[in-house]
Amino acid sequence: MPLAANDPTRKTWLKTPKNTDFPIQNIPFGVFLTRDDVITIGTRIGNYAIDLGALHQLGYFEGIPLTDDIFLQDTLNDFIADGRKTWRLVRNRISELFEENNPALRENKKDRATVIFDLSEVEMQLPVQIGDYTDFYSSIEHATNVGTMFRGKENALMPNWLHLPVAYHGRSSSIIPSGIPIHRPQSQKLPNGATEPIFGPSRQVDFELEMAFITTAANNLGESITTKDAEENIFGLVLFNDWSARDIQKWEYVPLGPFLSKNFASSISPWIVTLDALEPFRTDSPKPQKELLPYLQYEGKKSFDIKLEVALQPDGKKETVIAKSNFKYMYWNMSQQLAHHTVNGCPVNAGDMMGSGTLSGPTPDSYGSMLELSWKGERPVRLDEGGDRKFIRDHDTVIIRGHCKTKEYPRIGFGEVSTKLLPVFQPKTK
Amino acid sequence: MPLAANDPTRKTWLKTPKNTDFPIQNIPFGVFLTRDDVITIGTRIGNYAIDLGALHQLGYFEGIPLTDDIFLQDTLNDFIADGRKTWRLVRNRISELFEENNPALRENKKDRATVIFDLSEVEMQLPVQIGDYTDFYSSIEHATNVGTMFRGKENALMPNWLHLPVAYHGRSSSIIPSGIPIHRPQSQKLPNGATEPIFGPSRQVDFELEMAFITTAANNLGESITTKDAEENIFGLVLFNDWSARDIQKWEYVPLGPFLSKNFASSISPWIVTLDALEPFRTDSPKPQKELLPYLQYEGKKSFDIKLEVALQPDGKKETVIAKSNFKYMYWNMSQQLAHHTVNGCPVNAGDMMGSGTLSGPTPDSYGSMLELSWKGERPVRLDEGGDRKFIRDHDTVIIRGHCKTKEYPRIGFGEVSTKLLPVFQPKTK
Repeated sequence: MPLAANDPTRKTWLKTPKNTDFPIQNIPFGVFLTRDDVITIGTRIGNYAIDLGALHQLGYFEGIPLTDDIFLQDTLNDFIADGRKTWRLVRNRISELFEENNPALRENKKDRATVIFDLSEVEMQLPVQIGDYTDFYSSIEHATNVGTMFRGKENALMPNWLHLPVAYHGRSSSIIPSGIPIHRPQSQKLPNGATEPIFGPSRQVDFELEMAFITTAANNLGESITTKDAEENIFGLVLFNDWSARDIQKWEYVPLGPFLSKNFASSISPWIVTLDALEPFRTDSPKPQKELLPYLQYEGKKSFDIKLEVALQPDGKKETVIAKSNFKYMYWNMSQQLAHHTVNGCPVNAGDMMGSGTLSGPTPDSYGSMLELSWKGERPVRLDEGGDRKFIRDHDTVIIRGHCKTKEYPRIGFGEVSTKLLPVFQPKTK
Repeated sequence: MPLAANDPTRKTWLKTPKNTDFPIQNIPFGVFLTRDDVITIGTRIGNYAIDLGALHQLGYFEGIPLTDDIFLQDTLNDFIADGRKTWRLVRNRISELFEENNPALRENKKDRATVIFDLSEVEMQLPVQIGDYTDFYSSIEHATNVGTMFRGKENALMPNWLHLPVAYHGRSSSIIPSGIPIHRPQSQKLPNGATEPIFGPSRQVDFELEMAFITTAANNLGESITTKDAEENIFGLVLFNDWSARDIQKWEYVPLGPFLSKNFASSISPWIVTLDALEPFRTDSPKPQKELLPYLQYEGKKSFDIKLEVALQPDGKKETVIAKSNFKYMYWNMSQQLAHHTVNGCPVNAGDMMGSGTLSGPTPDSYGSMLELSWKGERPVRLDEGGDRKFIRDHDTVIIRGHCKTKEYPRIGFGEVSTKLLPVFQPKTK
């Protein structure tokens, strides 16, 4: 199927800001609450949120096989389960409808008023009900940095790391959309030099710069997905902040991995950018340093050149960009991740989410966590308006942004995931 | 609210086998497909499956605040979300309806034909849509056995083990009900003495004897649950076989925990036995060996005396009971597990599942996995009809059973979770 929606010369009749993350070539999918308190599935062009439920009711998706209520839902799961062919038909149709020379919607004032909202009028929701969430550990720079800090340079990478995309299961229930504040978590931690743990607030709350992909229903129990077929099963990508509490993590994670140090909150950007929209930005993954077992081998460019940045904004002050990285640094690409995840027959469903792991780059200004940027707190990170940070303080906001850009093609972006850290939760006395 | 349904002298007008796991004092909840291809929520008395959707439509739950379609669903999630008060009202009402002196349903032949099925006529389903699944590691005997095998007797228990209920996140998508066969998983493993991994079928497929509890919607993001309130949020328990592939696990699990070695399949018994039904079998947990931080302290008896057994049945042969254990051996009880899980503000939803971890007892015949029973394969387990096992072979069926019994009170049981291991999955050639 031709990706007509990817025509770089196409313009829209909607007014969009220059250099928007959301030109007519993007057409991401999300879920929002309208000013009329209706939950609907929508897309975004420039600073407009477009109600796909209403568009569908008005007949603008005629000819595309869709159930009547496919967009009148509070999650994208059913639409995602419809499969890639349907996503493409819908994305192409939206692109046509908003193309500058198409009068169908442009000249229908009443319909326009029904389906187009200013972004400030809507409230973004979690775009999918995430069944299972897996987090990979696929940046060699991040794994090496963390390994060096905790085990020394010689033992930085575990023996399995170069042979398989290491991953662990995360918690879905605490995944929240951008804009929802979180509280500093409490749990057990072992003070330096102590033999008995104490209970209290984490003093090492950290972000992790990640991206995550959302899958469709990919396989049944027992079946596997090849690296060749993997992308057919990926709907799109979001920005992902995998909040972490390092002191809690250090005490709890042996031998079964991180638990309370991660599951207090994880935040994602609300618009899922489809793999189709990212097509013009394909690039190579890093060259494998070990020969790969056949099921992890692949052909072609399976990564994407997505520029990422992290900003830290103290309460009431201006933000400082503290890290710049790129999705393409990821050593294990998404096709390898999905092939590995299913090689044992583990089923993947529509709405599952797979995190990249912290996306650190090769230089110290491209590290994707405070742990690495401040090197365990030894080198505090300077802020533009004064002061510094070893880890995240109460009332700080962490903002992750990401976009793609080449000379020939319009900028395709993800918007942002922005999350404020509040002090420890104080229960109301009954 | 009095637990009228727990009256030990109560008898039912249904014919039930002597020593059934499901006397009128049990009243578990499950989901089944009827002979008419309808999915409904039901309960079980003796060898009868009772259609609660039909009972409700016929008006037998009058006076209890329930939505019309609460039982006409393919999962128990909404019913569980209604909360403990509603579960108790429904369980008491079912108990009354089937009490031997109550003619209301007993004498209504037409209604009886509509709501009562022979167990052989229905097909049990997964009882809940499991949002998140967490597996604890709460048997001190199991943790000590595994630790001794891999790190020696002196370092068997990790320093954190006696201070907190160690746990990790598992995969929900591969949780299946009893009766569904599974395939031997494949993945990477490192042969003894090798430095490079190979790909192939696991040669160390193992069961893990566990139980799991199902929660209701317990807390919002940021909030915690105390040990005092924890049981209010537990709907009930099932038997749980946490299938594991030891060779895959050994290679992959450092540093982030088990992944493909666990997520190929996990099986549960289909009837959820409520905490209320288990009330007569309360017992003490093992005495803590370290002083507990305040949030893990508790009062009263928070464990249950549930006798467990594992049987292994080679294809076409009789089964051998290979292990006998008890839920009460669990060092960290469910209230402590839930308090720990939420102390950092992690939200728990209706339909979440929390596994106990392998429930090994103090003696070698009470170990809850082949890894322990055969001590890494050094002491093969003898089977009654000849032969032995280090791990599970193709076409073996593993059956876990559990029940409670005291002199004064009828047997309350869980039925079984029975799962056959098939050879490696062979994809159909297209």
